[in-house]
Amino acid sequence: MEILPEIVNLLLEIKEKKPLVHHITNYVTVNDCANMTLAIGASPVMADDIGEVEEMVSFASSLVINIGTLNARNIESMIVAGKRAREKRIPIVFDPVGVGATKLRTTTAKRIIEEVCPTVIRGNMSEIKILAGMDADIKGVDSVSGEEDSEKVAQQLAQKLDCVIAITGKRDIIAQGDRICRIDNGHVILSQVTGTGCMATSLIACFCGIAPDPFIGAAAGVTVMGLAGELAKKSLQSGEGIGIFRVRLFDAVWSMTEEDIRKGGRVIYEQKSH
Amino acid sequence: MEILPEIVNLLLEIKEKKPLVHHITNYVTVNDCANMTLAIGASPVMADDIGEVEEMVSFASSLVINIGTLNARNIESMIVAGKRAREKRIPIVFDPVGVGATKLRTTTAKRIIEEVCPTVIRGNMSEIKILAGMDADIKGVDSVSGEEDSEKVAQQLAQKLDCVIAITGKRDIIAQGDRICRIDNGHVILSQVTGTGCMATSLIACFCGIAPDPFIGAAAGVTVMGLAGELAKKSLQSGEGIGIFRVRLFDAVWSMTEEDIRKGGRVIYEQKSH
Amino acid sequence: MEILPEIVNLLLEIKEKKPLVHHITNYVTVNDCANMTLAIGASPVMADDIGEVEEMVSFASSLVINIGTLNARNIESMIVAGKRAREKRIPIVFDPVGVGATKLRTTTAKRIIEEVCPTVIRGNMSEIKILAGMDADIKGVDSVSGEEDSEKVAQQLAQKLDCVIAITGKRDIIAQGDRICRIDNGHVILSQVTGTGCMATSLIACFCGIAPDPFIGAAAGVTVMGLAGELAKKSLQSGEGIGIFRVRLFDAVWSMTEEDIRKGGRVIYEQKSH
Repeated sequence: MEILPEIVNLLLEIKEKKPLVHHITNYVTVNDCANMTLAIGASPVMADDIGEVEEMVSFASSLVINIGTLNARNIESMIVAGKRAREKRIPIVFDPVGVGATKLRTTTAKRIIEEVCPTVIRGNMSEIKILAGMDADIKGVDSVSGEEDSEKVAQQLAQKLDCVIAITGKRDIIAQGDRICRIDNGHVILSQVTGTGCMATSLIACFCGIAPDPFIGAAAGVTVMGLAGELAKKSLQSGEGIGIFRVRLFDAVWSMTEEDIRKGGRVIYEQKSH
Repeated sequence: MEILPEIVNLLLEIKEKKPLVHHITNYVTVNDCANMTLAIGASPVMADDIGEVEEMVSFASSLVINIGTLNARNIESMIVAGKRAREKRIPIVFDPVGVGATKLRTTTAKRIIEEVCPTVIRGNMSEIKILAGMDADIKGVDSVSGEEDSEKVAQQLAQKLDCVIAITGKRDIIAQGDRICRIDNGHVILSQVTGTGCMATSLIACFCGIAPDPFIGAAAGVTVMGLAGELAKKSLQSGEGIGIFRVRLFDAVWSMTEEDIRKGGRVIYEQKSH
Repeated sequence: MEILPEIVNLLLEIKEKKPLVHHITNYVTVNDCANMTLAIGASPVMADDIGEVEEMVSFASSLVINIGTLNARNIESMIVAGKRAREKRIPIVFDPVGVGATKLRTTTAKRIIEEVCPTVIRGNMSEIKILAGMDADIKGVDSVSGEEDSEKVAQQLAQKLDCVIAITGKRDIIAQGDRICRIDNGHVILSQVTGTGCMATSLIACFCGIAPDPFIGAAAGVTVMGLAGELAKKSLQSGEGIGIFRVRLFDAVWSMTEEDIRKGGRVIYEQKSH
């Protein structure tokens, strides 16, 4: 399968259909998620009160559940919105921020997986390992795991949960069933800006809002985020740093062309038994 | 009436008096609202706990109520703060974000209007139509309505609620009693950045914090936001996009001159029976 | 004592050790605090639910408590996390945003001081005066006090509370016991961007996460923030303003060199009886 032409087509389709992406997310990076959703051509809505989330998600194209600043109030909203999305076959993209760091995060992530059955789960290696029931070094919400066994972990968890697993890191891995994508876009400087993981999750949700195949949607979101990181990094001039890099991430997604993806995308697809 | 000279005078007066603008607003665009309030020379304070909002609003020059991420907790704070502001004759600018999208938003907006009697209501065409009891196409928090009948809708609602109505869109309309303003500043790219509506609301509140006439205050806030959008758009160079555009919005408001307003303001005032 | 070489050493040590800084902070400037923490080389985690804050703070290097948007829910989390940090001898940096503006803020600040015993308290002159039981002109969350008596106020409060007091303003003052630092870095334009006080607090917490002496940690955080303001201001070209200034603050902290500190730091240390 050729992935890059499909990503290009989906990108054009987002700009045409402007899918509505309902976010229940953290208050740290929520503005970035909204602006990234707009930058790619989709439409964000943020709503987390239990009195409106079922109704709001009903006319959305996809739902983001991100536990970055979870609390007793928004956890229930995540569950209720997620169940409604599931009923209506609206794709759900789950970002288990910091799972493993505290019992509340681990319990909540497991509850969301069990009760909501996310379509895609995106996390760093530590987070995905924790969900897979493995040990992982956790330090706050950042990953400190190696990447050597990421393909195996992703594939096993994807099969166990019957969903798409996206691990982002030096090399990004997308896994579902016997399908796997390796994505070598991105730049280490992305880890020096808060919310680049959350933004990748939002981009996945934008693509899944129009893509019939969430495996491709996940690959597309991760590829675009990685490419944006490369383009923003390349634009930095002497004396420029992380502040302007972050601004240019939005420029890069907003102005990303077919050619940027065709030439810059480093995506390898494989069907792989295990 | 000549509007532009009045806007210029108010702009200078804001920088001198630094009105305190109390916001009870959403967590998506709150940082932008605070920075926009500072950029024009006013002073923002964000406080939403029911234990302090009455006291905080008492020494504010104006109050913003924005329901972008309303919840059971902050709705009560909005009502309580709004009532106190009303008692003390402090101007209240209400932004009914996403009204019509969910029952909670519609019920809450109506409750705020009834119990608080806002001085100015700013929304997009869909939101104002919903408040006027008309049908409107709603998609999340973005408007998809046409603008053909916006003047009539604005005037009727302004009369019914005895307040200033500001509809922002391709052409902005400010209405109160038999007075109407048509403002043709702005650029469509503003709709591709989250929070430009919220920021316009904050700017209106900055002006209303010092303007004796909230109709002029609303026109001033909307004109400055639109002009900032034009100036920021004009500054974009090849390869620049939505990220740096958003940054330059703050530059443009911060450095806006009398001449920018006198030469760039496209504001038509009319006294109009209907 | 020579302060600047110590600040340089601590800066290098942060980049090596990447201390985890747990924030319980406001939703207005939280993204800026996270990005500033990353810019200097530390690792931010934001978590405020009472069900996880004790666990989260246990493996943090320092804790920020910032009451910018305090509410009934997060106040209890601040207390609980603060007590646990105290037990585990994890440095606590307290930012009493807007204390004096409302009874809730004053009561809460006093409760935090009494029950948590912060290691460092950073505020503007008005806030620190209120904590010292003096009268102060309060306008929302911004200071309108003079700075003439700041040294005396800082020293007295530091002795009374047995902690480090940092007053930021035109001249910054750090006081503990009979030690005092006067820091003349910074630029008045910093007060025109929201959250520069909060970011200074976060930087102090980054330094205190690795510094054995919180007095030096506080001086380091305040110096770096002031220097960043100067460097960002100096970079502004014609037509540029507060929006791009804010972006360059992050660039400046991210790329700050030993030489920037050695040459640019205007820090005077004195041991002073009173």
